[in-house]
Amino acid sequence: MKIKYELLKQEKHTKARNGILHTNHGDFETPIFMPVGTQATVKTLSPEELKGINSAVILSNTYHLWLRPGEDIVNKAGGLHQFMNYDGPILTDSGGFQVFSLANKKDISEEGVVFKSHINGEKLFLTPEKSIAIQNKLDSDIAMSFDECPPASASYDYLKNSVERTIRWAKRGKDVHNNINQSLFGIVQGGAYEDLRKYSAIETTKLDFDGYSIGGVANDGESKDDMYKAIDYSIPYLPEDKPRYLMGVGEPIDIIEGVIRGIDMFDCVLPTRLARHGNAFTRHGKINIKNAKYKEDFTPIDDCDCYSCKHYTKAYIRHLIIANESFGARLLSIHNLRFLIRLTEELRLAIKDDRILEYKEEFLKNYEKDRD
Amino acid sequence: MKIKYELLKQEKHTKARNGILHTNHGDFETPIFMPVGTQATVKTLSPEELKGINSAVILSNTYHLWLRPGEDIVNKAGGLHQFMNYDGPILTDSGGFQVFSLANKKDISEEGVVFKSHINGEKLFLTPEKSIAIQNKLDSDIAMSFDECPPASASYDYLKNSVERTIRWAKRGKDVHNNINQSLFGIVQGGAYEDLRKYSAIETTKLDFDGYSIGGVANDGESKDDMYKAIDYSIPYLPEDKPRYLMGVGEPIDIIEGVIRGIDMFDCVLPTRLARHGNAFTRHGKINIKNAKYKEDFTPIDDCDCYSCKHYTKAYIRHLIIANESFGARLLSIHNLRFLIRLTEELRLAIKDDRILEYKEEFLKNYEKDRD
Repeated sequence: MKIKYELLKQEKHTKARNGILHTNHGDFETPIFMPVGTQATVKTLSPEELKGINSAVILSNTYHLWLRPGEDIVNKAGGLHQFMNYDGPILTDSGGFQVFSLANKKDISEEGVVFKSHINGEKLFLTPEKSIAIQNKLDSDIAMSFDECPPASASYDYLKNSVERTIRWAKRGKDVHNNINQSLFGIVQGGAYEDLRKYSAIETTKLDFDGYSIGGVANDGESKDDMYKAIDYSIPYLPEDKPRYLMGVGEPIDIIEGVIRGIDMFDCVLPTRLARHGNAFTRHGKINIKNAKYKEDFTPIDDCDCYSCKHYTKAYIRHLIIANESFGARLLSIHNLRFLIRLTEELRLAIKDDRILEYKEEFLKNYEKDRD
Repeated sequence: MKIKYELLKQEKHTKARNGILHTNHGDFETPIFMPVGTQATVKTLSPEELKGINSAVILSNTYHLWLRPGEDIVNKAGGLHQFMNYDGPILTDSGGFQVFSLANKKDISEEGVVFKSHINGEKLFLTPEKSIAIQNKLDSDIAMSFDECPPASASYDYLKNSVERTIRWAKRGKDVHNNINQSLFGIVQGGAYEDLRKYSAIETTKLDFDGYSIGGVANDGESKDDMYKAIDYSIPYLPEDKPRYLMGVGEPIDIIEGVIRGIDMFDCVLPTRLARHGNAFTRHGKINIKNAKYKEDFTPIDDCDCYSCKHYTKAYIRHLIIANESFGARLLSIHNLRFLIRLTEELRLAIKDDRILEYKEEFLKNYEKDRD
């Protein structure tokens, strides 16, 4: 069975909306933040810990699983849910972003992309058909179309060609998609150009996907302004009855701005990556737990309902991070993921009460991006 | 309150015994295996996971906590239990073993040991008094006397002097010990020499400690035969109403042999260290999960009741270890620790039924030390 999006509430003053996504592995409300489990594991966390922070859908990476352990092994295990013991919904990306960002010496043609594995330098070839075939085997709930991810510096002409190719690739992928229990999303590209986003959104929508994502906004070097433009130029042409997913975005303020602009789903490695480097989100901004001022701070990271904040102090977590103990990264990962998931829970409540702009104002009043 | 050892059952055919140790943080039956939480965390595990594998008492390292975060910070947190959120009993070692094994350029005198920190090369001085003062502040349930840990290659004369010094150091430590809620163990040294072990055991016992440990058996290069001799030569001179702890021993066969010889407590970094390198204990011997033969092995590590074996396959754990995902080390750590804890549970049952020698025979029939 495919997923089904149900719109519950359209906020009065913005494009923000609250919905519910029905999947074969449970239903969840949107807007939502999806933890990233790159290699069939959300770094340092167990499935039970994911449930404990009220995580619903997680993302896993096709590129990484293709290389290791290989989609056939995951398939023989009974699919990704069985393989990693996660019974909630899973979305897989197409591998496109990793091919364009991790691999070097890539050679892009109409057929696909030739590139070298970041693990062993092996020459590999990824095409729209191959990406879908891998995802069909991984048996995730939601698969993504294989798109070209142009660099942030790309010219208008480059982007125009790239948008057209991405649409052709989306169609090729859709044509070979053959997992009836897996939904497939299309991806809107086009940089910060209004006409390209419009064209991309309209043409991609014509292919009738189960959901739509807005890509090309999380590359380094992209300004926030361009990110907001990319959303604003795309959303009006996306159908109301399908979920909208902003790829690779996880800064709290960007999640709030994305929701206000009509986005339903977010994912980002930021919360777990920050955790491994000793950084934590708080209501007052991001802190660096390694800072000497937390040496004897026997209070929790934040006013928060997560396992880490209920049981551990900044001084202890600081000790673990400095002593390179993985339990420290785990405690901060739990907290940072819970922070973003709780943020989306609060945004849903704000949408229900038609006070999303007030929520944003309150949030920003307290929040400094980098506090330490 | 100090700990109290209660002998429940003396096995008929061997020196093996089943007892109960009453502590301020709960009672536990012996023989027991203690997971090692070097830096105030059992590597990769949460306190809840320790409870989940039926772990009772854990060990933490004075040397490491002295250097990082410092005993004063742990003390200000309310002691080690509070600091690390573990409400079960904790034993701290004296720092002696680390000073003699981790630090280089050490200078041993009657007063103590001058050595360089393995973290930053800082010159440090550890004495029996200092070790006890640190442990008093850490506020563990059981503290260890500061002993000299001679190299495995030490001559008889070296060992004789070392044993005498260790007894003088034990007295100095006991004289300054001032935490009324903390028990203190003496350490028997003397290599594999019968007269030295006897002398050490008798003189240490005269100082009337709350328990006794047998040291100097876990150094690299020591033969199993020497280990068993060290135990056999010490045990007859140790009081029946006090617990006996064999330091740094964690090979399954050595635990069985130790129990048969009258040991009550064991600790070792082996199960968690093996886990981080992808090795797992099984009923049939140690396996290396990275072995290609487990690539498509969708069965659990072992016939085992632990979380890892209940939910995950060898193929998945292999993938995690090869992909360098810390959740893999965590799953193997849970399993390996549970394996040794379960072993001691079975040994207790065997003692109760006077069939410890049969148990050993059955165990060895199936067990190959290094299967892969």
